[in-house]
Amino acid sequence: MKAEIISIGTEILLGHIVNNNAAFMAQGLASIGMDVFYQVTVGDNHARLSSTIEAALERSDVVIMTGGLGPTVDDITLQTIASVTKRSLVYNREIEKEIKASFKRRKIRPPKEVFRQAYIPKGGRWLSNKIGTAPGLIIRMGEKILIALPGPPRELNPIFEKYILPLLSKMSGGGIIKSRVLKITGLAESQVNTKVKDLLRLGPKVTVGIYAHLGEVDLKIMAKAKTKREADRGINKVASKIKNRFGDFVLGEDSDTLESVVGGLLIKKRKTIAIAESCTGGLISNLLTNIPGSSKYTRANVVTYCNKSKEEILGVPAKLITHHGAVSPQVCLAMAKGVRWLADTDIGLSVTGIAGPAGKKKNKPVGLAYVALATKKKGVVKKYFFSGNRTDIKLQTAQRALDMARRYLLDAG
Amino acid sequence: MKAEIISIGTEILLGHIVNNNAAFMAQGLASIGMDVFYQVTVGDNHARLSSTIEAALERSDVVIMTGGLGPTVDDITLQTIASVTKRSLVYNREIEKEIKASFKRRKIRPPKEVFRQAYIPKGGRWLSNKIGTAPGLIIRMGEKILIALPGPPRELNPIFEKYILPLLSKMSGGGIIKSRVLKITGLAESQVNTKVKDLLRLGPKVTVGIYAHLGEVDLKIMAKAKTKREADRGINKVASKIKNRFGDFVLGEDSDTLESVVGGLLIKKRKTIAIAESCTGGLISNLLTNIPGSSKYTRANVVTYCNKSKEEILGVPAKLITHHGAVSPQVCLAMAKGVRWLADTDIGLSVTGIAGPAGKKKNKPVGLAYVALATKKKGVVKKYFFSGNRTDIKLQTAQRALDMARRYLLDAG
Repeated sequence: MKAEIISIGTEILLGHIVNNNAAFMAQGLASIGMDVFYQVTVGDNHARLSSTIEAALERSDVVIMTGGLGPTVDDITLQTIASVTKRSLVYNREIEKEIKASFKRRKIRPPKEVFRQAYIPKGGRWLSNKIGTAPGLIIRMGEKILIALPGPPRELNPIFEKYILPLLSKMSGGGIIKSRVLKITGLAESQVNTKVKDLLRLGPKVTVGIYAHLGEVDLKIMAKAKTKREADRGINKVASKIKNRFGDFVLGEDSDTLESVVGGLLIKKRKTIAIAESCTGGLISNLLTNIPGSSKYTRANVVTYCNKSKEEILGVPAKLITHHGAVSPQVCLAMAKGVRWLADTDIGLSVTGIAGPAGKKKNKPVGLAYVALATKKKGVVKKYFFSGNRTDIKLQTAQRALDMARRYLLDAG
Repeated sequence: MKAEIISIGTEILLGHIVNNNAAFMAQGLASIGMDVFYQVTVGDNHARLSSTIEAALERSDVVIMTGGLGPTVDDITLQTIASVTKRSLVYNREIEKEIKASFKRRKIRPPKEVFRQAYIPKGGRWLSNKIGTAPGLIIRMGEKILIALPGPPRELNPIFEKYILPLLSKMSGGGIIKSRVLKITGLAESQVNTKVKDLLRLGPKVTVGIYAHLGEVDLKIMAKAKTKREADRGINKVASKIKNRFGDFVLGEDSDTLESVVGGLLIKKRKTIAIAESCTGGLISNLLTNIPGSSKYTRANVVTYCNKSKEEILGVPAKLITHHGAVSPQVCLAMAKGVRWLADTDIGLSVTGIAGPAGKKKNKPVGLAYVALATKKKGVVKKYFFSGNRTDIKLQTAQRALDMARRYLLDAG
């Protein structure tokens, strides 16, 4: 079955609010195996809303509208539905009762306009709104269903979950869609794409999609099936293929992040870490301490922005900075060793680079960054060039540092 | 002139991502007085995308598409535009050059597929994408304009602002909508609401809206007018009323943030700052170093998570920690003084608290936080209780610390 979402409201057309409702309902519809091929946003305008509803009824089985059910004259969704479906609006005493009760609870006298919301198109079923006063509406038209729901998310969400999803799930035959995301780091989107080209054309029961973010590429596996078990089976098969192909480049699944995985590994392997940051300015420390339980492996992290602090706090030899510059593999490694010594931890992790927009030097462009890791026994340092603005460069540098720690910890005893 | 936005991507139809692009572009279009009557989201499907583009060209003057320009076989926007507009796709050597240069900067060898992005419909103008490899596209068809832009916001936004808005603004020649946001920090939404109730009913030429975020309340003033000057006059009148009512609680306007304002004040007043963080874990340091030029006032910041590091690195007396606990006004103030001494700066700023979910003690609940500021002459400390999850508490603590610095700097000579 095909569903279509129509969002009604000038505030979306003007960009004053982001259309979270559409995403919320789309997720729910996907979870019950219902296809959504179109989402349309239109204003509170009779002609345009009419033609949008007509087009939707033409091409979709279920049309879900949100917004425009308020008590003011701007709100014309119900009138438009009535005219498109050639039904009259009738006054409903039960809705009137609900509205009165709602105002009584809030100890406010209901203004006259609010009772406009007690009118519904003839033959429609109304859905109780426990938060606001605009009821939801369901109209069956032969094989097709027209649904209208209030726009405010706190009113929409409970009605959608309580009435709409169960109803549509029953109608669509009870199939489900499950999904799993495998997160890949350290490879560009095009590199990932080359390795999974064949999997991108699996369909229609199991599909794989590529979604690139800064420093991370997600492979989303989706399975349509009759049961959860069948869906899981389909997903597992593809997931193990992907894991075989990418190995350590897979950082985790679904809600995993680089920092949550590094945090988990630190706890599992009983290691402590200290971080010395220059260009990332505290971002790595901030990310790692977003993870509950980070006090188990964190003692002290430092941001050494100026040369003097690198020398005085971390004990980086002044000579190294003079000879090689603060943004150099030598200084980066010395920072990792220095912070490990300062905080007395198993691992020292460090970054130094040029986040821009100013600060580039001869042979040292904006985006140049070094990442180093030191333990009692060894030290490694890597060089990178990143593009983007200041925060992009900070984030990519932080990701490579966390990934260096992740890879070290995976192998660590 | 009427513009229509078509967002292309299965991930939006499935609700995996929220359609921020549409809101971003809609805002921009409103700011140049261009009407947006429809926003449509459709998947990477040739037939459905074709009919969507055709319907849009029928009813709108400007059709802006985003997404589906990537290098993979899923990405069919350009092919579909070519077939709808009956143009052939031609290989463009200049785009090829840009793509090669982009990979060269990143020191990655470009895979073959990426050069699919060098094809554009004949007669189209391509727009340079400095962040990714997919160029933007403009096709003029008589009076109508078809525009295709990359989907990732960090690629879309600069192209939209640099090329699209100026072009469309010239074409539309009409009235404008201007807006200004005044940002208020340190007051709850309900407190702000009480103070501006009368202004919320100004309309229709000048309107004020309230938007609450964590730790910040935005008042958005919008004016519709024939000219920028007329709009500015309307906005200025309301803005000065709001500023009079809220005084120092107004942290700034539009793109200002607490950290950008603090950074600006530090530079203006030629002061340096050092930060010692416990529960915020590097967040304050990260925020302040997001601001270009932060190396002017930053020398060293530290995250002292364990007691030992507070003693050893910051010189907090062990006795203070034993007597009062690490989360206490005494320790917080000693941290601020200690980090100021360590980094040899004008200002020392510090926080200590319990971000949760674990870590609460008798009389010290999750959400308790202290914020302190020390200078050569004085030291102040404040106590707060915050609610929310771990990152909410981190953010609110960081905001109050930055606001303490802001208020100090406003008065500083």
